[in-house]
Amino acid sequence: VSDEIKLDLGRSARIGIEEALLCPGKSLTQITAILDRIADAGTTMLLTRLAADVEAALPQHHRVQLDYDPLSRTAWFGSVAPPRASGDVAIVTAGTSDLPVAREAARTLSYHGHAPTEIADVGVAGLWRLTERLPDLRAPRVVIAVAGMDAAIVSVLGGLLGNVLIAVPTSTGYGAARNGETALAASLTSCAPGVVVVNIDNGYGAACAALRVLGSG
Amino acid sequence: VSDEIKLDLGRSARIGIEEALLCPGKSLTQITAILDRIADAGTTMLLTRLAADVEAALPQHHRVQLDYDPLSRTAWFGSVAPPRASGDVAIVTAGTSDLPVAREAARTLSYHGHAPTEIADVGVAGLWRLTERLPDLRAPRVVIAVAGMDAAIVSVLGGLLGNVLIAVPTSTGYGAARNGETALAASLTSCAPGVVVVNIDNGYGAACAALRVLGSG
Amino acid sequence: VSDEIKLDLGRSARIGIEEALLCPGKSLTQITAILDRIADAGTTMLLTRLAADVEAALPQHHRVQLDYDPLSRTAWFGSVAPPRASGDVAIVTAGTSDLPVAREAARTLSYHGHAPTEIADVGVAGLWRLTERLPDLRAPRVVIAVAGMDAAIVSVLGGLLGNVLIAVPTSTGYGAARNGETALAASLTSCAPGVVVVNIDNGYGAACAALRVLGSG
Amino acid sequence: VSDEIKLDLGRSARIGIEEALLCPGKSLTQITAILDRIADAGTTMLLTRLAADVEAALPQHHRVQLDYDPLSRTAWFGSVAPPRASGDVAIVTAGTSDLPVAREAARTLSYHGHAPTEIADVGVAGLWRLTERLPDLRAPRVVIAVAGMDAAIVSVLGGLLGNVLIAVPTSTGYGAARNGETALAASLTSCAPGVVVVNIDNGYGAACAALRVLGSG
Amino acid sequence: VSDEIKLDLGRSARIGIEEALLCPGKSLTQITAILDRIADAGTTMLLTRLAADVEAALPQHHRVQLDYDPLSRTAWFGSVAPPRASGDVAIVTAGTSDLPVAREAARTLSYHGHAPTEIADVGVAGLWRLTERLPDLRAPRVVIAVAGMDAAIVSVLGGLLGNVLIAVPTSTGYGAARNGETALAASLTSCAPGVVVVNIDNGYGAACAALRVLGSG
Amino acid sequence: VSDEIKLDLGRSARIGIEEALLCPGKSLTQITAILDRIADAGTTMLLTRLAADVEAALPQHHRVQLDYDPLSRTAWFGSVAPPRASGDVAIVTAGTSDLPVAREAARTLSYHGHAPTEIADVGVAGLWRLTERLPDLRAPRVVIAVAGMDAAIVSVLGGLLGNVLIAVPTSTGYGAARNGETALAASLTSCAPGVVVVNIDNGYGAACAALRVLGSG
Amino acid sequence: VSDEIKLDLGRSARIGIEEALLCPGKSLTQITAILDRIADAGTTMLLTRLAADVEAALPQHHRVQLDYDPLSRTAWFGSVAPPRASGDVAIVTAGTSDLPVAREAARTLSYHGHAPTEIADVGVAGLWRLTERLPDLRAPRVVIAVAGMDAAIVSVLGGLLGNVLIAVPTSTGYGAARNGETALAASLTSCAPGVVVVNIDNGYGAACAALRVLGSG
Amino acid sequence: VSDEIKLDLGRSARIGIEEALLCPGKSLTQITAILDRIADAGTTMLLTRLAADVEAALPQHHRVQLDYDPLSRTAWFGSVAPPRASGDVAIVTAGTSDLPVAREAARTLSYHGHAPTEIADVGVAGLWRLTERLPDLRAPRVVIAVAGMDAAIVSVLGGLLGNVLIAVPTSTGYGAARNGETALAASLTSCAPGVVVVNIDNGYGAACAALRVLGSG
Repeated sequence: VSDEIKLDLGRSARIGIEEALLCPGKSLTQITAILDRIADAGTTMLLTRLAADVEAALPQHHRVQLDYDPLSRTAWFGSVAPPRASGDVAIVTAGTSDLPVAREAARTLSYHGHAPTEIADVGVAGLWRLTERLPDLRAPRVVIAVAGMDAAIVSVLGGLLGNVLIAVPTSTGYGAARNGETALAASLTSCAPGVVVVNIDNGYGAACAALRVLGSG
Repeated sequence: VSDEIKLDLGRSARIGIEEALLCPGKSLTQITAILDRIADAGTTMLLTRLAADVEAALPQHHRVQLDYDPLSRTAWFGSVAPPRASGDVAIVTAGTSDLPVAREAARTLSYHGHAPTEIADVGVAGLWRLTERLPDLRAPRVVIAVAGMDAAIVSVLGGLLGNVLIAVPTSTGYGAARNGETALAASLTSCAPGVVVVNIDNGYGAACAALRVLGSG
Repeated sequence: VSDEIKLDLGRSARIGIEEALLCPGKSLTQITAILDRIADAGTTMLLTRLAADVEAALPQHHRVQLDYDPLSRTAWFGSVAPPRASGDVAIVTAGTSDLPVAREAARTLSYHGHAPTEIADVGVAGLWRLTERLPDLRAPRVVIAVAGMDAAIVSVLGGLLGNVLIAVPTSTGYGAARNGETALAASLTSCAPGVVVVNIDNGYGAACAALRVLGSG
Repeated sequence: VSDEIKLDLGRSARIGIEEALLCPGKSLTQITAILDRIADAGTTMLLTRLAADVEAALPQHHRVQLDYDPLSRTAWFGSVAPPRASGDVAIVTAGTSDLPVAREAARTLSYHGHAPTEIADVGVAGLWRLTERLPDLRAPRVVIAVAGMDAAIVSVLGGLLGNVLIAVPTSTGYGAARNGETALAASLTSCAPGVVVVNIDNGYGAACAALRVLGSG
Repeated sequence: VSDEIKLDLGRSARIGIEEALLCPGKSLTQITAILDRIADAGTTMLLTRLAADVEAALPQHHRVQLDYDPLSRTAWFGSVAPPRASGDVAIVTAGTSDLPVAREAARTLSYHGHAPTEIADVGVAGLWRLTERLPDLRAPRVVIAVAGMDAAIVSVLGGLLGNVLIAVPTSTGYGAARNGETALAASLTSCAPGVVVVNIDNGYGAACAALRVLGSG
Repeated sequence: VSDEIKLDLGRSARIGIEEALLCPGKSLTQITAILDRIADAGTTMLLTRLAADVEAALPQHHRVQLDYDPLSRTAWFGSVAPPRASGDVAIVTAGTSDLPVAREAARTLSYHGHAPTEIADVGVAGLWRLTERLPDLRAPRVVIAVAGMDAAIVSVLGGLLGNVLIAVPTSTGYGAARNGETALAASLTSCAPGVVVVNIDNGYGAACAALRVLGSG
Repeated sequence: VSDEIKLDLGRSARIGIEEALLCPGKSLTQITAILDRIADAGTTMLLTRLAADVEAALPQHHRVQLDYDPLSRTAWFGSVAPPRASGDVAIVTAGTSDLPVAREAARTLSYHGHAPTEIADVGVAGLWRLTERLPDLRAPRVVIAVAGMDAAIVSVLGGLLGNVLIAVPTSTGYGAARNGETALAASLTSCAPGVVVVNIDNGYGAACAALRVLGSG
Repeated sequence: VSDEIKLDLGRSARIGIEEALLCPGKSLTQITAILDRIADAGTTMLLTRLAADVEAALPQHHRVQLDYDPLSRTAWFGSVAPPRASGDVAIVTAGTSDLPVAREAARTLSYHGHAPTEIADVGVAGLWRLTERLPDLRAPRVVIAVAGMDAAIVSVLGGLLGNVLIAVPTSTGYGAARNGETALAASLTSCAPGVVVVNIDNGYGAACAALRVLGSG
C-alpha cells in the first residue's frame, strides 16, 4: 500500500490550500495508511465524502482523532484549530436538500480557519425569503450559492449583489434535473455577469475557491 | 403536388385551433399549392417560420393577401379579423433576443382574436424591471414567459403569480446554453409549482396552449 | 435543524397553491421538524415521494395525522377537507406502469379539493381503448395525459380534444426510453398544437398546473 | 483515383441488393470515376443524396444517362427497367416535410422493380386522415412509415396493422426534435409490438429492408 | 385494481401478435389480477422481464400454470402449444452475455409457434466462428442478430446475407458502450444495406418483428 | 422598438459592473436604438460579439464613437477612460486559437479600468513555455486561463498557483472537443482545488468575475 | 450450456493475445463451464472483472487453480508462467482511486510475461510528483497513463515523453466527470500529439495494446 | 502578433515529433507570421486543415515553399526530405469518403519520412475486399484503420491481425452516426483486444501515434 500513496504535503505552502482526502474509490486500507502518515507527521487532514459506514470501520485510534459530521460526510483529522467568524463568506442554499453540499463547503472553510454565515432554504419560489436577507448577503466578500434543479437563485443573487458569487449546482431534483447537469448549465449561462461555477455537489471546491479569494488581497 | 397535401380543415371545429402552416421543409411549390386551396376555400391561414426570401418568392397574387411580420417570420393569409385587446394574456420576455419568439406567440394569439399585452426585456439580472410590472402580470388569465439561457425568470414569476404560466425556452445564448436545451431543462425543473413548458422557440405552441385555456371556461 | 427550514406559508395566498414537501434529500429529522411546525400552525401539508420506509419511521403522533398512499407515495398531513367530484379534470394513463405518477397528480388535486376522473391503461397500441372513452375526455376543462416510452397518446389526444392538455412523461420503459427523456422530448414535439408539458414523473406539477387553470376564470 | 474505389459488384448476387452510391463526402472526380466503371460494365447504379449542384456539374455524357429526382436527390444511372406496381409496399408520411425521405424510399424500391403506393400527409394530429386510409394500409406486405418530431404515427399504425412495419424517423422539426433523435427514440420505444427502425432520414435503408422482406418468401 | 387494467384481447386478431405482459413497474397485485383475467378467459399469456423474486411471490395456483425461464426472465401462462422447428428464424449472439436477450426472442417466437435456431457466441473477434456457420444462416427467412458493445457482427452479417436481418443491440459492455447506446447507434449506421433495428435489449420486439415477416406472405 | 428595450442603468451602482450589450440576436435597429439611449445619457457601453459586418452597418455618427477590436469582436462606445496597468490580472492562453476569447476578457477588464497582462500560447504540450512564466503568474491577484480541447493547462496552473484561478473553456478543437464541452467539463473536474469556471468562450464573464474579486477587498 | 460457449482458442496464434474471460453478464454456470474446458485443454486463462462474491462461489477445484487479485478483480487460471521485469512498460496513475484499473493492466501484462513498472499517485495537482519520476518514464517503450476526472496528466506526459503513450480514462470523480466520459474526451483531445486512448476503465485493453507494440518489432 | 505565438521548436528533440500547425482558428496574419519564423529558422513545418481559400491567400513567397494537398488539406512548408517506402505502416479506409482523413495520416507520416501503404474502400459490407488484402495487412508494424458510421472494420481487423491497430473514427455518415461519435464509441468498445483510438477525423494524431511506435524499438 505504501507505494500507492504519494501525499502532496507541500501544497499548502505552494497554493495556500491543504491536500484533502476524497474518500470514494479508496479502500479502508488505503485511507488508514494515509491517516497513519498524517499522524506520523503530526499534522491534520480534511476528509471529504467519507461514508458513515467507512468512518465506523476505521481503526479506533484514528476515529478518536476524527471530528466527523454525518450530514456533510466530512471529517477533520488531528488537532484542527477553531475557526474565527470573520464574516468573510456567506453560504446560501435554495432548499433543505442542498444542505449536505453547503455544509461540506462550510466545514472546508472552517477547517481552514474561516467560519462562514449559513443562510438556508431561501429558494426563489418564495422570493421574500431571499430579499429579506439581502443585508446579510451584501456584507461578506464571497457568497457561495448552493442550488439544484433550475438554480434560479444564482441569477437573482448575481443581479442583486456585487461580491464574488460562486455557484455550486447540486444533484437534487429528478427527471430533467439530470443529476445536477441542469443546475450546472443554468449557472454557467446565468444572465447575471461574473458568476463563477464549480462542479456539481462540489462544496469543497467552492470553499477552496473562496479561500483563493480571501488569500488574494 | 396535390396528392402530397392533406389539409385538416376540420381542426378548428374539433379542437378550437386552426391548422397552421409550418414552412421549413416545404418547397415553394408546396406552400403555393396550400395557399391555393385556402384561397379556393375562401378561408384564412396562419404561416409560421416563413423566411423572408421564401415570402418574397411567393406568387404576387398570394403576397397581396399576406400580412407578413419579418421579426416573427409569421404571416396571416386572407381576411383575418382584427383582434380585441381582452387583457387575457401577457407575454413577458427576458431579453431583447427573445422577441422573435414572443412575437410569434403574440401574432398567433392575435390571429385567433386575442391581442396580448407584451412586456419586454425584464430579465432577472435587473430584478426591479420585473417587480415594477407585477400589477400588469397579475391581471391576465395566462402569462407566457419567453426566456433563453438559464430562464431564471420562469421560477421568479412562478413564485409570484398564481395565473397559468407557460414557459417558452429560447435558443438565445451560447456554449452551455446548448441551443435552448438548458432553458428548456431549467423551465421543466422550476422550483415554482405548476409551470408548464412548450418546445424551444415554440411561440406558436405557447399561444395555442393559451387558446386552450381561454376556451376552457 | 430549525435554522435549516424556512417554510413559505404565504404561498397559498400568493399563488393559490400550498407549499408541498418533496421528501427525497430530506432527513427524517428534517421532515419531522417540518411536520412539527405544520402541527403547531394547525394547518395541513401535502408530502410527495415519501418512501414507505421513511413514512414508517416517522414519530407515531405524526403518523396518525397522515393519510398515506403507497402507490403514489403521497401523504396528507392534518385535517384535509374531502374533495368534490367536480368533473373539472380527467387523468389518462397509457399503461399500468404509469399509475403511480397519475395517482400523485390525482392525490394532489384531491388535496386541493378537486377529485379528478381517472381513465387507466388506454395506450394507443390498442386505439379502441382510447376512442371509446372520448366522450368522457371531452367534458373536463383539463386533461392530464400520463405516458412513458414514445408517449404517442399525447399527440392522439391533442388532435382529438380542445381542452387544456397537460402531458406528464414518465420514466417507464428501458433502453432508448432513456428514463423518460424520450417521452419528454416526444411530448414537447407533439404534432398536435398547444400541448403543454411538465417534468418527467411530475404528477404533482401537472396537478398544480391544472389548479392554475381552474383558478384562472 | 482508380485505387481509391473498390466496387462491390457481387453484392446483388450475394444479398439481393445492389451497391448504391451515397454521394456526400465523395468528390466530383470520384463520382465520375465510379460512373465510368458502371458505364464500362454496362450495368446500372442508384445514387443517393446527390445534391443538385453536383448533379449539374457531372460530365454531360453521364448526365444523359441519369434519371434525377430533385425532391429525393436520387438518381438512376443507366437503363433501369420500369418497376411494376405490385402493391407489395406502402409508404406513409406524417407530414409534407417528410416527403423527400419517403421519395428516396420509393425511388429505391422502384429502381429494384417494386413501385410502392404513397400515402402522404396523414399525421395523427388529424387522425381521420389516417383511419380513412386503413384499407389501403392493410393490403401490402410492408408498410414504411416516415415521420419526424414525435413520430406518433408509428405507434398508431403498429397497433392497427399486422404487416411488416418499418419506421423511418426524419429530421423534420426543431428544438427538442433534435434533428430526428426524438423521432428515432420514439420509434424504438413504440408501445406497438414488432416495429423495426432504420437510421434518421434513411429512406434508402427502409427500402432495402423492404426488399429483404419481399425476397424472403 | 380492476379499473387500472384494460387488456387488449383483440390484438392477436387485429395484428397477429398477442398482448404480452411487460412486468417491471407493475405491482404483484396488478400482475396477479391480470393473470386472474387470463385464467378466467381460458387463454394464455406471455410475460416478459419477470424477475425471479416476483415470480416466486405469485399465488401458487398461478405459478403451476407458469412455464418460467430464469435466463430470459420470460414466462408462459396457460396451455401454450408446443412450437414447431420450422427453420424460419435463426438467432445469432455475439457473446455469452447476450444470451438472456436472445433467449427472450427465442421464447417469444416459440410461444407463437416458431422454434428458432440459436447460434451462440460467434462475435467477430474470432471471425471463423461466424463464417463456419454461414450455411445455417443463409437458410432461414429471418436472422436476428443480438450484440452489444460495437455490434460489429451486424454489418458483417448484413454484407453476407440477403435474408431479413433484425439487429437487437444489447446493454452488455461498459464505459463507452453506454448501456447499449453504442450498439444501437452502430446498428442503425451499419454499412450493410437494409438492416433493421429494435430497442436495446428488446428480444421480445425482435421476435414480434420476425412474426410480422413470417405472417406477411 | 422603444418598448422592446429596458436598460438596467443602475447595475453599476448595484453590483459594480455595467450592463454590456451582447449583440447576437439583436437587430441593427435594436442596437442602434440602444446606442441612441446611451448617447443621450452621455455615458458609455461595452458591446460584445459584435460581428464586423454589423459594426460596419451601424450609423456613422455611432461608429465614430466606437473603439472596435475585430479579433475579440468587442467595441467600446463613448469616452471610455484609459485603463491602468495595475498588474492585478493575468490572462493566459493555451493556444493561438484561444486569443479572441482572451482578448474579449482583456477588453472587458480594460473597459472597467484594469489593464491585464496577457501571456499567450503556453499550452502544456510544451510545458517549458508555461513554467518559464511562473513568476509572472504568481504576482497578480487573479489569473484567467483560456483553453480549449482538454484544457490541461487549468489543472497545471491550479496546482502551481494560489491566486484566484478562473478557467474559460473555449470551443477550439474538433470531434470529441464537442464545441468546448470537453474543455468545460475538464475544467470543472480539475484535480487542482478551487478552480472556478465560466461558460464556454465567455471571456466577458471571466473578466466580470475578476472585477468582483478586485472589488471585494 | 455447452452450446452457448464457443472459445476462440486460436486467438493467441493469430494475434498474439489470448482470449480473456470478461465475467460480468456471465452466470456462475457459464463461467464454470468455460473453466472446465480450459482445464480439460490443460491451458490457462485470464479472467477480468471477476467480482469477489462470484469468485468465492466457484467450485473449489477451480478456485485452487485461481490466482485472484481482489483490487483489480482479475484472476489467472492454471499454471501461468511468472513474468519477467523487462522494463518495457510503465503504468502511471494520477490518483489512488485509479489503482484498480492500473492493476488490471499490470496483471494482464504479467499474465502475458511482461512485469511492468508501476508509478502511483502522481497527478498534476502536485506536478513535482510527476517530474521527479521523468527518468523512470523515459526508459520503457510504452507508458500507460491511468487517470480520471480531467486526465490532465495525459497531456503533460504526452508533451514530455516520446514513447508510446496509451491513455486509460477512468470513472473516478463525480458530477461533470460523467463516469469517465470527461476523462475519455479530454484524452482524445489532448494537445500532445500521438496519444492513443482505450475505453473507460479498460486496463485490460491498454495492456493488450502494449502487447501489440511489444510484439511489433 | 509576435507576442501571440510561442513555437515549441524543441518538440522534435524532446518527443520525436515536430510541432504542426493546426490552421482553423488562426488568422491569415498569424499563419503568415508563423511561416515567417519557420523560414527564418531555415526549418520545415507541417500544416493541417489548411482550407484551400486560406492557402490561396497566403503570401506568394510562402506559397512557393508549400507542397499543398487539397484532398487532405495538408501542406508541407520548406524543404521536406522525400519519404522512404519502409512498409512499416498500412492505412486502411472503409469507404471513399474516409479518404481525406486517411490522406492526412499518410501525409503526416511521409513528412516524417515514412511512406505508408494505402488500402482504400474495403469496408465490411463487402467482406471479400478486406480478406483478399490480409497478406498486405499482416506485414507492417502498424495498421491505421480509418472508418466512419459503425466502424465495423475495426473489430474485424482487430480479430485477424496482431500488429498495432490504431482506429481513426471519421465523421462520415448522417443521423445516428452523430458526426463520428458512433464510430468513436464503437471503436472504443471493439470486441477485439488492444485496439487503440484517436479523436474523430484525427488522421494527424494517428500518424503521430504510429511514429511513437516506430520510434519505440
